[in-house]
Amino acid sequence: MSKRHVWRLARRPVGDIADGDLVYVEEPVPPIAEGEVHVRVHYLSLDPTNRIWMSDMEQYMPPVGLGEPMRGGVVGRVVGSRHPAFQEGQLVAGLGAWTDLLVSDGTGLQHMPEIPGISIPQAFGTFGVVGPTAYFGLLDIGQPRPGETLVVSAAAGGVGQIVGQIGKLKGCRVIGIAGGPEKCRFIVDELGFDAAIDHRSEDVGAALDRLAPDGVDINFEQVGGPIMSAVVARMRLFGRMPLCGMISTYNATEAAEEPGRWTLILMRRLTIRGFIVTDFAARMPECVQQLASWMLEGRLKTRQDIRPGLDRADQWVKLLYSGGNFGKLLVEVAPD
Amino acid sequence: MSKRHVWRLARRPVGDIADGDLVYVEEPVPPIAEGEVHVRVHYLSLDPTNRIWMSDMEQYMPPVGLGEPMRGGVVGRVVGSRHPAFQEGQLVAGLGAWTDLLVSDGTGLQHMPEIPGISIPQAFGTFGVVGPTAYFGLLDIGQPRPGETLVVSAAAGGVGQIVGQIGKLKGCRVIGIAGGPEKCRFIVDELGFDAAIDHRSEDVGAALDRLAPDGVDINFEQVGGPIMSAVVARMRLFGRMPLCGMISTYNATEAAEEPGRWTLILMRRLTIRGFIVTDFAARMPECVQQLASWMLEGRLKTRQDIRPGLDRADQWVKLLYSGGNFGKLLVEVAPD
Repeated sequence: MSKRHVWRLARRPVGDIADGDLVYVEEPVPPIAEGEVHVRVHYLSLDPTNRIWMSDMEQYMPPVGLGEPMRGGVVGRVVGSRHPAFQEGQLVAGLGAWTDLLVSDGTGLQHMPEIPGISIPQAFGTFGVVGPTAYFGLLDIGQPRPGETLVVSAAAGGVGQIVGQIGKLKGCRVIGIAGGPEKCRFIVDELGFDAAIDHRSEDVGAALDRLAPDGVDINFEQVGGPIMSAVVARMRLFGRMPLCGMISTYNATEAAEEPGRWTLILMRRLTIRGFIVTDFAARMPECVQQLASWMLEGRLKTRQDIRPGLDRADQWVKLLYSGGNFGKLLVEVAPD
Repeated sequence: MSKRHVWRLARRPVGDIADGDLVYVEEPVPPIAEGEVHVRVHYLSLDPTNRIWMSDMEQYMPPVGLGEPMRGGVVGRVVGSRHPAFQEGQLVAGLGAWTDLLVSDGTGLQHMPEIPGISIPQAFGTFGVVGPTAYFGLLDIGQPRPGETLVVSAAAGGVGQIVGQIGKLKGCRVIGIAGGPEKCRFIVDELGFDAAIDHRSEDVGAALDRLAPDGVDINFEQVGGPIMSAVVARMRLFGRMPLCGMISTYNATEAAEEPGRWTLILMRRLTIRGFIVTDFAARMPECVQQLASWMLEGRLKTRQDIRPGLDRADQWVKLLYSGGNFGKLLVEVAPD
């Protein structure tokens, strides 16, 4: 491989990601410098946070610089190494770039154990970001107790489907909010959620009044905006709300909150806590072990939405913001 | 005493409390029924929550019914009892009514220990509501650590002055927000806060940028509205925000939130938790003991704003919403 392909950030999107914000470049592969590792990328993870990294809004790590390779999670095999921690042929995963050949100094890359019975895209798609996000957000912040009612938005997405299944494992009644009948059917029939609300065809508030007449104990919040408002208005006393994402609002330039929202949060003694999965980095082994056990026991299903072709990554990423993906979105760059 | 005086709720206020919302009635004292206790009231506590109780908005206990005695904290002496837990002459305190003679079945009333060196209005004004609110809200929810920056709004009020002093005892840098130069001088010179912001003459955000250039770790929130917005925008990563009150918004019919507020809460991983002091009822003895120790050691000062005359309670209560009180607001009903 003497050439590699890289998506570079050409300009910061205004509103939705537009053609030309990212450019696809063919470049010569540089020789491996001392301390570097080259990784042939098999799968690229596309995540809602990609849009945040493209903008210069306040965020939890520096935004991607203009002209730099677009940041993204990758899994692949080492094809060359002058780095003491990595040997040729090893499977590695971590924060890399939108490329088919990652040139790295090792920062953010880990060895990825291969678990019999769990495929590489399944393991990468689950343990990389979405599984730990669901696990720590729900268990540490949501604190689910048997018999409680859990609502999760973006329920058929990578994080949402795992949140709901862990909620069921912990004895909660789980209501998922998703877009479209196919996703709603999936989370109930395939994943075992108790109920689904299709926010495209139903009034979320009215549906919650019907499905959870006594209110909501935990709102695992991923979208913000009117869907969040409908759930928050129906939270029970001492409810918890892990704030995981605000995908509907990342492009927003205006927002209005209902009057009295903060008074409601006070009166119902809600706990709201924002988090990013990296906050829990030290406990990642515990999480991966538990998720893998549940998967091997058949108690946790994960669905990936695998799209072909690195050269179309700029189109696939848009699916996340239109609700077009169905499960954890991955790009197949080159099969193992 | 064959007559007593009672403030009854005649109609629910719309916006500010208006003359005639409460009516002052002279009534015959009923004979003491079996299981009842009669208490001659010395002091009535006026608290921001009074306005909430008068309205039929969602709240943490039932609103006061129309025609019923207005609810309020009282301290006084038992003047007659057919209740096994209370004897004539005992000092009692708790949730009662705006009256000079409380007729009670004992619900919500406790014996009040008399502590040498702490006067009755000081003990009642501090241990009744505001001290425990400050204590649990700051320590349990705010989780102050030495060197952190704590901001408290309504800083010269009953709760705020104690929050700031406990913050200092815990090693925080404390900035109080108060209205007017006298209150600002008081919290710095008398109570030992590090700095004060006069929200009547200063831009709160600009003052915070100057006084806390590295941001705010804990925002003990009591007022809501633009002051809260200015502080939240300057919260540090992993900041905590005990939600204690929203006094500026209780009468509001409209509210607008800055765009991106929830994204900021997420990105900075803030923890926001609403609470009411009664949530911590089981731990009240621990709290009173600690507060009393600090007071007797001279490490915690409390200021009461004692106004004369039960017949003017409907006017005194308005001070809470105009910022006219200076310290914990009490009405002297009849001296001990």
